[in-house]
Formats: sequence, structure tokens, C-alpha cells
Amino acid sequence: MTQRYKITFAYDGTQFAGFQRQPHQRTVEGVLTKIVNQMAKQPEGTLGVYGSGRTDSGVHALAQVAHFDFPFPIPADKMLKGLNSMCPLDIQIKDVEIVPDTFHARYDVTGKRYLYRLSLGPFTDPFKRFYTAHWRFPLDFGLMETAIQDLVGTHNFASFVASGAKPGSRVRTIFSTKAINDEANHEIQLEFYGDGFMYNQVRIMTAVLVEIGMKKRPVDDIQRLLAVQDRQQARLTMPAHGLFLERVYYPGDDPEHNEKKHPVRD
Amino acid sequence: MTQRYKITFAYDGTQFAGFQRQPHQRTVEGVLTKIVNQMAKQPEGTLGVYGSGRTDSGVHALAQVAHFDFPFPIPADKMLKGLNSMCPLDIQIKDVEIVPDTFHARYDVTGKRYLYRLSLGPFTDPFKRFYTAHWRFPLDFGLMETAIQDLVGTHNFASFVASGAKPGSRVRTIFSTKAINDEANHEIQLEFYGDGFMYNQVRIMTAVLVEIGMKKRPVDDIQRLLAVQDRQQARLTMPAHGLFLERVYYPGDDPEHNEKKHPVRD
Repeated sequence: MTQRYKITFAYDGTQFAGFQRQPHQRTVEGVLTKIVNQMAKQPEGTLGVYGSGRTDSGVHALAQVAHFDFPFPIPADKMLKGLNSMCPLDIQIKDVEIVPDTFHARYDVTGKRYLYRLSLGPFTDPFKRFYTAHWRFPLDFGLMETAIQDLVGTHNFASFVASGAKPGSRVRTIFSTKAINDEANHEIQLEFYGDGFMYNQVRIMTAVLVEIGMKKRPVDDIQRLLAVQDRQQARLTMPAHGLFLERVYYPGDDPEHNEKKHPVRD
Repeated sequence: MTQRYKITFAYDGTQFAGFQRQPHQRTVEGVLTKIVNQMAKQPEGTLGVYGSGRTDSGVHALAQVAHFDFPFPIPADKMLKGLNSMCPLDIQIKDVEIVPDTFHARYDVTGKRYLYRLSLGPFTDPFKRFYTAHWRFPLDFGLMETAIQDLVGTHNFASFVASGAKPGSRVRTIFSTKAINDEANHEIQLEFYGDGFMYNQVRIMTAVLVEIGMKKRPVDDIQRLLAVQDRQQARLTMPAHGLFLERVYYPGDDPEHNEKKHPVRD
């Protein structure tokens, strides 16, 4: 009897060519799919692993979510141990749940939370080089903290979408944002929680906030960019390795934002 | 006119075959020596870089120290920028000082401080896999905290020295130790500050403390090991990648421990 499992997992994106399976590339989906098929003693490619969405090469996850159907039932705690025993050290399965067959890791998403870490100071910290974007120039945290609030709400984010994004509506809702001045660690962290983000959207929004912090843009420039809906006005994209998928939300996880509005997205 | 520079630098030891120069290997000393000779426009191998001591393959440094003689004077801040601009991203020069020609990074050491990081929990955290030793079994922190105090003082540490260590006295002084229960990060950290440590000494002491935390040894077993002076009784060595050289001390840095007792050591 087939059983559907929801898995929550962290990965260090440094040595992956992103989340999505690709031929001849080491990807998170590819590694997990291989492990699940091995555990089920199925020929490679029989069982599929479906993630909540892709992350780019170098992007990390603290809690990505996927589901798969397993041909025979195993208790969740055994599945957790079994998967971890087969995972490479750059993937950690943090939680396993048995879910109804109606659960879908991608179609059921009600929200996603991303974190972007900027490390400050004149020189790169060797221990953060894969886990933060290093920014050597002074940033005015107060300006960034003010500007990030302008992203909250339902907007057309066309100014913040990479040209490679799938066609379709650029309207998304950002539920909340947060700028954290982590002086002890010489970091500024930016958090974005919304119903979904398009290709490179978080990295482009972060780049605009960095430009505001450098006073290369006025503090209210996000309002203008949301109005003009033109990517040419926001050309920079921050590097992948500062970005973390922090959490994926499903119905019930956050009663305030419980709707599945955009069933298919990036 | 030759000028002597003292440099303080951090490195991520993951991709180095240790500190000490070796043919056909990427080492910290090798990389720095090459950079200093390039900056001085000297043929490779003309100028030498002298570290406070070696660290093993995989061991990290938050503040290692070295000195070198440069053929023409450059202000310290220019040297700092110049070196960092040529360093790979896994080495960061944190400080440069112009010092008298009598200063020697190795012979003048008055103390060293090491940190060992243990990450707890059933599975390896992908983001800590190169920067902590993962320990999946329960550890009694209170026992470790009590036992680590027994290392303080002047002792013969023969029970805690790897067989590959240089011959000579095994007597060293540990000025202070500290066990930190960092529950927020699921880590136990052990700190050792002394006048010098022999080959693998910190990693062997940490292994004994871990065995005490697991109740495989009595809490007062360090007293016995210091008395028997026999490495056969403490066979385990913790892995290199949990170890950080935290600070190197020179005369004046710590008025309480200001003596150069062992002019040549590991």
C-alpha cells in the first residue's frame, strides 16, 4: 500500500547545481530521488520526489519541503532515520510526516519565508564566504529598515523579476518583511514572507535595498519601482549564496495567511 | 630597508593541507609565502613567512599569527589591504603591525587559546559539517564542565600527546579552561588557554572530555591520566574540523601570563 510522506529538510546549496533535477548535475532533487528509490528497492527513476519549488544553484535551505509516495508503509521516525543515514552530509532531513494522498508539496503552499544574509566589513570572513554576500561598503541600516516595509502588500512585482521567469501574472502578496541589524555578527539580515516569490525576486529586492542603504536610490524608491513595473530600473541581482529558504507554509501553519492563491508558480 | 611585519589572520582550514608548507600541497604558509614574494616582486621562495606554529589539515584559525621581512617599507594599513586583495577567500588578514626585528612569531609566543566545537543532535547540521565535530550521543555537560578544570595547571601531558609529536618535555601549563553549553546553537564548546600545546593535544583532551560526558570514564579520570602519563589510556583523537586556533599571545598581551617558557615547540 502506497503511503505519502512529507519531508522537511535543510541543505547547504554550495555544492549543488540548485534544487531541480537536471541530467549530469548534482542537484538536491536528484540526490533525494535516488535515495528514495534505493530505499524502496525500485529501479532509479520509478518514484518521484516533488519539492515545494526550486532554489537556484548556491541557494541554501533551512527547511525546504517535498513529498513522495512510498510503495510500503514505514513509520515516520524510521523513515527519518533511514533517509538521513543515506543522505550526503550537505542534506539533513529534519522532519518526516505521513500525509494524506491529497497533500501536494508544491500546489498546497500558502507561503514562503526567505532570509538574505549580508556580511559587512572591509574583507570577506572566510567562514561566511558561502553563507553570506559580502558587502564592503557602508550601509545605512535605518534607510533599509524603512524601505523594506514598502514591499509589504499585494503588488505587481514586475520590476523585481528576472527575465528568465515563467510568463504569467507578476502579482504577489508579501505578508511581512523584517530587517535585522545583527551588529554582533557584522551582518544585516533581510527577511521576506509572502505567498510566493518569482525567479530571482528576493535577490533583486535585496539588491534594491542594498542600493537604498548605499544612498544610490532614495528611501522611497521601492514605491516608484512597484509603480513603473520595469526590470530595467532594477538591474542588479544579489549573489545566490547569501539566500536561505527559511520556511514553507501549508494550510494550518499560519491561520492568518491560509489561502492557496496561486496553485502553480516558480 | 627591510621592515618586519606581524600579521594576524583567520583561515578556513577545510581546503588546506594544514598550515605548514609542503611540496605539491595547498597550505596556508605556502599561499601566504607566495603572496608576500609576489608583492615584493621577488622570485618565489626568497622571502619566508614564519607562523606561530603549525595547525593540522582541516583545523581552522580565528587569529593565527606570522611574521615576515619585507624588502621595502609599506604602511601597515596599505599592507593589510594589499595582502587581502591577493589572498584567496579562505584566508583573511585581520591585522598588520610593523614590529621590531627582534620580534619572532614562533619564539615569542607566551600563550595560545584553542576552541573545540561539538555539535549535538541525532543528525549532522549541513552548515556545520566543516566547522564542528558532530556528536550524536547524549553528553552530560555538568560532568565535562567539572572535569575540564582538572587540566588547569602545570602537568606532564604525556597521556595526551600523539605518537608523532616531537621528542622533548611533555610538561606544559594550562592557564585556564572553559566549557560552554551553547544550547541555542545545539553546541558544546571547550576552550583551552595555555603556554603551548603539543601535537594533537587539544583533540585528545577533548576526546577524553567527551568520554567523560558519555560516562565512559569517571569524572576525575583526567587526574589519573595526568598521573599515569600513558597515551595508551587515552586512545581517541577528535576530528580536526572542530578545532579553532582562537588567539596567539605575545609579551604584553596578557600581563598575568607574560613569560616565554618554551622557546621552541610544536
